[in-house]
Amino acid sequence: MPQRIAVIGGVAAGPAAAAQAKRIDPEAEVVLFEQGLDISYGACEMPYYVAGDIPSDDTLIILTPDRFEQTRKATVRVGHRVLALHPRRCRLDVKELATGRITEERFDKFILAVGARARLPGLEGEDAPNVFPMRRLDDARRLSHHLKAQKGQHAVVLGGGYVGIEMAEALRRQGLRVTLLEPHGRPLHAYVDTDLQPLVLDAVQRHGVLVRQERAVGLELDTEGAVRAVRTDKGEKIGCHLVVVAIGVVPNTLLAEAAGLTRGGTGALAVDAHMRTSVPNVWACGDCVEVERVIDHRKIHLPLAPVAFRTARVAATNAARRGRGSPACFPGVVGATAVKVFDLEVAAVGLRLDEAQAAGFDAFTTTIQHWSRVSFYPGARPVSVSLIVDRVKGRLLGAQLVGEEGAALRANVLIPCIRDRWSVHQIRDLDLIYTPPFAPALDPLLVAANAAAKQVGKR
Amino acid sequence: MPQRIAVIGGVAAGPAAAAQAKRIDPEAEVVLFEQGLDISYGACEMPYYVAGDIPSDDTLIILTPDRFEQTRKATVRVGHRVLALHPRRCRLDVKELATGRITEERFDKFILAVGARARLPGLEGEDAPNVFPMRRLDDARRLSHHLKAQKGQHAVVLGGGYVGIEMAEALRRQGLRVTLLEPHGRPLHAYVDTDLQPLVLDAVQRHGVLVRQERAVGLELDTEGAVRAVRTDKGEKIGCHLVVVAIGVVPNTLLAEAAGLTRGGTGALAVDAHMRTSVPNVWACGDCVEVERVIDHRKIHLPLAPVAFRTARVAATNAARRGRGSPACFPGVVGATAVKVFDLEVAAVGLRLDEAQAAGFDAFTTTIQHWSRVSFYPGARPVSVSLIVDRVKGRLLGAQLVGEEGAALRANVLIPCIRDRWSVHQIRDLDLIYTPPFAPALDPLLVAANAAAKQVGKR
Repeated sequence: MPQRIAVIGGVAAGPAAAAQAKRIDPEAEVVLFEQGLDISYGACEMPYYVAGDIPSDDTLIILTPDRFEQTRKATVRVGHRVLALHPRRCRLDVKELATGRITEERFDKFILAVGARARLPGLEGEDAPNVFPMRRLDDARRLSHHLKAQKGQHAVVLGGGYVGIEMAEALRRQGLRVTLLEPHGRPLHAYVDTDLQPLVLDAVQRHGVLVRQERAVGLELDTEGAVRAVRTDKGEKIGCHLVVVAIGVVPNTLLAEAAGLTRGGTGALAVDAHMRTSVPNVWACGDCVEVERVIDHRKIHLPLAPVAFRTARVAATNAARRGRGSPACFPGVVGATAVKVFDLEVAAVGLRLDEAQAAGFDAFTTTIQHWSRVSFYPGARPVSVSLIVDRVKGRLLGAQLVGEEGAALRANVLIPCIRDRWSVHQIRDLDLIYTPPFAPALDPLLVAANAAAKQVGKR
Repeated sequence: MPQRIAVIGGVAAGPAAAAQAKRIDPEAEVVLFEQGLDISYGACEMPYYVAGDIPSDDTLIILTPDRFEQTRKATVRVGHRVLALHPRRCRLDVKELATGRITEERFDKFILAVGARARLPGLEGEDAPNVFPMRRLDDARRLSHHLKAQKGQHAVVLGGGYVGIEMAEALRRQGLRVTLLEPHGRPLHAYVDTDLQPLVLDAVQRHGVLVRQERAVGLELDTEGAVRAVRTDKGEKIGCHLVVVAIGVVPNTLLAEAAGLTRGGTGALAVDAHMRTSVPNVWACGDCVEVERVIDHRKIHLPLAPVAFRTARVAATNAARRGRGSPACFPGVVGATAVKVFDLEVAAVGLRLDEAQAAGFDAFTTTIQHWSRVSFYPGARPVSVSLIVDRVKGRLLGAQLVGEEGAALRANVLIPCIRDRWSVHQIRDLDLIYTPPFAPALDPLLVAANAAAKQVGKR
């Protein structure tokens, strides 16, 4: 009998898991359930579609359901919502949204890839037609159509994380005035907490975004039910034509909890290194699970596409393999994020200073500024590097880089170093590439490691 | 008594060593001898000066002798040639070139940073005024003046290594016709020996350089003693107005050999990890020494500036420390080179396929092409990656990358992985940065590691 595997959720992890399950066990019947009508799309590309960099929403769709079925050999059911999961009885309750018909289906194994949803501020009117969370492809389509219909307006963006920043830039590119409400007053503070923070704020402000250290506490609606102003915790009222909500995401765990699955300390689903949940025939992956950060062995919720793809591969391999081959293991994450902030590349890997200290490290930061190429080669731009370093042995714990070029890819170099617990002394001895058009004789990473090495062991 | 330390050679390693010696022992009398009139200049930047990217030769000078003395507190003697080194007698014979005066000077310790010289083809007429090796700042100045005086000519470049390629590009930028004589017919073959080789050749040819698989065997001089044609091993005669010689470099070891120092198998000076030569009070560093490649523990001659700076730091620390502090160790190299080839970034790290096989590895290569950014984000360009991998355990031994953007800095990511003996399985699990403007969801490095992992253990 071929085994039947249900994959629930169709954006990133789900399609990856379904495809991998068929690769591991071509005999298996793999069914992918998605409540929306799109699967396998580039959610991270949505701000660039809104900005107009990417011309059409079709471009964001990597595989249509038809194409996915043809190439990946799994069955796809879009417009189907899974209402309940009964792992011990090997059953799913599924509702076909178009007809309202509910069926019960039998599966041997389940892979949850139900993702995360946009966190909402919990304000009356947040479901108004001119309020845009930015999570699903339909959110981006709706905003894009809204912008085409009504030009030259004022947008309020709630939240200065990477989605908030990307959306602020997208809206500026579309000619809108933009106010960013960031309760800390420090955009990207969840990634950049060193001396480099002012560079990020400056870039945002320099490109005409008004950053206000305020929190939205109310929405004022016009007679047609659209938001016409945002009220803030400072008693201000900010008139606006649309609101973008980018205050984070919440893992979708209701279905799993109802099925008896355990959540971890982050609120996301708890899984082991094989992506097994607390129930034997259920695996989970993507934005609904927490993963181990290898630096401090802490479980974190890191809803990023590369983590989704990799956990999906592990979950599906283990779900499908029927005891054959070796089990797949997820080796944990270092944690790496990069954001384009107008003309800046901003990148962060590993721990922030406060995270390092919270994890018990006697951590310090060293910040340097150097050049992306040989300083007098045309096009050379400053690159700033902050390293977060353990004072005792000089172990590198994290890094933050900001520059007009050469910041994001340079941050990648430190990921294997952090994973292998390198000291800054080892890093300063790396023989990195030097050639005037691409990198100076002492790469900014080496300059930073040199500077940090001098502080190790000192107070 | 303050110790007296002589540093011989003033381009890159020498000034770095002299400065470091004064940092370690501020009491020491450190004297830097250089036979030319310039010290501390960017030899790697010379092709970009010839091309006109860098406007003036002054820009290439990092520190003038005066400025070096003021800031680094070492004495500088330019225009002084060291004729002989007598380490056991703690003496140097030095000739002041301007006056011809020869003196004998006492030093306790010696640091050789005598570098390497351009290899010459050994042809009659190679010292003609329109033949240009490209090694010393004066070579670049002389060529630059020549080009200003005589426009629109035909240049023959001997050698398709990185200097040959950079000079071919520089001369094209200056409007010359350029013929590149490359006996293998494969430019950069010492760095790129996988499926990516044709991309390099194509870029060179596409930009109007005529590549001929020929070797120069003779020079034909006009009545004024200038070269007017190059004769080749295929019996051809190539008329030309100038010749650039870029067929490699030879370590300067005559002084050291006369002093009884041992050379290694590469022909460069043999040193240990402390940069000690075979004679107790003599250290050496920079382009005159060989270094250990950590992948196969083979000694190689790697005349690159970053190696020069790092070996200089080690040599000077150990020469100056007088038993205080810990000795400095040079941890060897992985080997990393990048070259701009017109519109391409070409980078190579670690072993070539043939080097890996010669070192006894059962090595194979995997080549993939992916994108520098998300494929549909504006500006995304193809990036090709070849990995050289040990078939038995999947250990990464080397890599070659070619692309219009994002190749050189990506190559750097693999350097710590190669150093720490990572397998391609570990590399494909790296959580590298993903954000549409800077990198696709699966970075080209991960796509390559994935493809290679499938070949491990197979024949």
